[in-house]
Amino acid sequence: MPEFLTLLPPDDARSLLLANVIAPLPASQTIETDSALGRVTAEDVIAPHPLPAFPRSTVDGYAVRARDSYGASDSLPGYLTLIGEVPMGAAPTLTLSHAQCALIHTGGMLPPGANAVIMLEYTQSARPGEIEIQRAVAEGENVIRVGEDVTQNQVVIPRGIRIRPAEMGGLMALGIQKLRVSNKVRVALISSGDEVIPPSQIPQPGQVRDINSYTLAALVTQAGGEPVFYGIVPDSFEALRLTAARALTDCDMVIITAGSSASTRDMTADVIAALGEPGVLVHGINTRPGKPTILGACAGKAVIGLPGNPVSALVNGYLFVVPVIEKLLGIPEGRPKPSVKATLTVNLASQTGREDWQPVKLLATPGGWQAEPIFGKSNLIFSLAAADGLIKIHPDANGISAGAVVDVFLMQ
Amino acid sequence: MPEFLTLLPPDDARSLLLANVIAPLPASQTIETDSALGRVTAEDVIAPHPLPAFPRSTVDGYAVRARDSYGASDSLPGYLTLIGEVPMGAAPTLTLSHAQCALIHTGGMLPPGANAVIMLEYTQSARPGEIEIQRAVAEGENVIRVGEDVTQNQVVIPRGIRIRPAEMGGLMALGIQKLRVSNKVRVALISSGDEVIPPSQIPQPGQVRDINSYTLAALVTQAGGEPVFYGIVPDSFEALRLTAARALTDCDMVIITAGSSASTRDMTADVIAALGEPGVLVHGINTRPGKPTILGACAGKAVIGLPGNPVSALVNGYLFVVPVIEKLLGIPEGRPKPSVKATLTVNLASQTGREDWQPVKLLATPGGWQAEPIFGKSNLIFSLAAADGLIKIHPDANGISAGAVVDVFLMQ
Repeated sequence: MPEFLTLLPPDDARSLLLANVIAPLPASQTIETDSALGRVTAEDVIAPHPLPAFPRSTVDGYAVRARDSYGASDSLPGYLTLIGEVPMGAAPTLTLSHAQCALIHTGGMLPPGANAVIMLEYTQSARPGEIEIQRAVAEGENVIRVGEDVTQNQVVIPRGIRIRPAEMGGLMALGIQKLRVSNKVRVALISSGDEVIPPSQIPQPGQVRDINSYTLAALVTQAGGEPVFYGIVPDSFEALRLTAARALTDCDMVIITAGSSASTRDMTADVIAALGEPGVLVHGINTRPGKPTILGACAGKAVIGLPGNPVSALVNGYLFVVPVIEKLLGIPEGRPKPSVKATLTVNLASQTGREDWQPVKLLATPGGWQAEPIFGKSNLIFSLAAADGLIKIHPDANGISAGAVVDVFLMQ
Repeated sequence: MPEFLTLLPPDDARSLLLANVIAPLPASQTIETDSALGRVTAEDVIAPHPLPAFPRSTVDGYAVRARDSYGASDSLPGYLTLIGEVPMGAAPTLTLSHAQCALIHTGGMLPPGANAVIMLEYTQSARPGEIEIQRAVAEGENVIRVGEDVTQNQVVIPRGIRIRPAEMGGLMALGIQKLRVSNKVRVALISSGDEVIPPSQIPQPGQVRDINSYTLAALVTQAGGEPVFYGIVPDSFEALRLTAARALTDCDMVIITAGSSASTRDMTADVIAALGEPGVLVHGINTRPGKPTILGACAGKAVIGLPGNPVSALVNGYLFVVPVIEKLLGIPEGRPKPSVKATLTVNLASQTGREDWQPVKLLATPGGWQAEPIFGKSNLIFSLAAADGLIKIHPDANGISAGAVVDVFLMQ
């Protein structure tokens, strides 16, 4: 297929790709919860018991029966008999009857008979064994009820959720020591190009080190995948096809980064077409950088051909590789992408009809963030290393004016 | 010291804390670059050679001497003698003389004598051995010069930079296989409270599982630290002091999460005061949640007392623990915090003079993100697990109205 006959907009291209990723999700595995940070739940997590499991005070004060406090005020205080103190970390041994109260600390368990707590600030000791109360409290006031955080058998964390510190805490609160998570998505990384050598070697004139396997491996790792390296394959259709076929069998998705010349890009498309149906879905995307990106699917697995130039490969990795990994992990589409608002420092031109992704550096000013575009030919990897994020220029626009407020999508 | 005599605003409290963190930075270590994702550079990274190391074509076309193309146009094309093709991955063996050209691919090395490339689109084969050119090119056009990405000895990544995919690529491009990074910051986690038990145990009435050690361990790990668990210490001044003193010696910073009662919070302050000078810096912060937070420094290391309630502990972990870790790693202050803009769904009240951090859930709508506050007593950990991020309500405001556009700081 000749290059760029039809250029799809990136969003359409991504939708088409995701719709063709239909192979079974990677299997799930059970791991220790305390090592699950960043992993994704493979099934709904159910509360084995309510939280809290007993009624707790949210303040330091006196546990009371609410009705015994009705009418109490600064000018007309009430008086309750103090029958003891609730210990921390144990069930109270006392039971409240009419007109009685017990000293209780934040987090303490409400004694039987009590249904509210009066804050310490609104009380004073009247005489030994008697407490003066200056406020009325309603039933349940300053108390967390049993099950107020979660009820027994409630779904507390749905499947498809990435474990953050808060989820970790919730799991520990429920004593859930093991967790079923999606396996890491195995992503095959194949480099091609006769000019490409491993980073450990000294390039001879005309040679360049493999960058893309490493930027993409890092991206895959961050997204929740496991990069699987297939090395640098010579510019030969048969060599590339054999390696890609092996990778397709062993992994959940395959990424081929082409050499920089047009002929190796064409070869990538031919290889994807030869791997299985439907083969190439999108050959050429209406975006910069990334026009030569090839999206394909074979046997229900995504096979993506990224341009050889490292900026293009990485930016298109964010646009197309990460969403596939997230789909395979079971993460719902359309989660918020981290960004910051910033003011553009200079005019940015772009070609109408094409979606541009412009690397920018963020500069702190008293008036907020400024976004300073980093200009450079698209094969300069350090232009991307200097960038904090990317600005999207919509295809309907022919640029963005200096002073405009833009969303900068953070590359983290 | 009695609680809350003086409540500092959070920003002032954090500045005071950071100013008192003056112990030597954690040592650095040399690691394999391909395992450095997320680590922080401990020294400037210098380019051992320029990038690219040879002049490269950015397009498919013909390498020429620019002056031989001057005047060429569609209506008045020029003609050049084709002397060969530049191979990919090797130095060209040919040298261009007057009125000669050579076929070259994207990424190919410019042959001696050539200083520009004419794109294939603007050429055609005139007759065997002769190429018709329909455009003039300037010197350097469609060429990346030697050192255009980076020059030899240039600082390509300063110290204090967290390695992302782009930095990884840049390092590989330069063949830098080993990297000097800051050691992970060792953060001691001490829980206290007679009511607190390990998550693996079944709570008896009045007991709760330790949540904070695990939420904070996850937060510390994400920020680039290494959590060191000191377990659950009984509510005894001497037991807590001994454990904290040991932790202060062994670790780069110490976090004590108090039991929920006021007496254990006071004990935390007393222990920090006893550990060394200056001791307690801030006792009580004008924020919600987190008023009982205690910030201290002993022997130049941060010692932080967080409230026992898990929402408060985690939110204040984001506000005070992460900045200390970043300072110790050598990361410059004031880097952008990931956020998204969203429209608030309901009115949010707050107390003037106090800075509030309100957990919200983000809902996707055709008009953009909506931020829906999650209301709940502050000790409900699952209210935070359900939240995508936090809204900051400034102390000068007495709330935020429904429909206002707010920054939601993502908890990732």
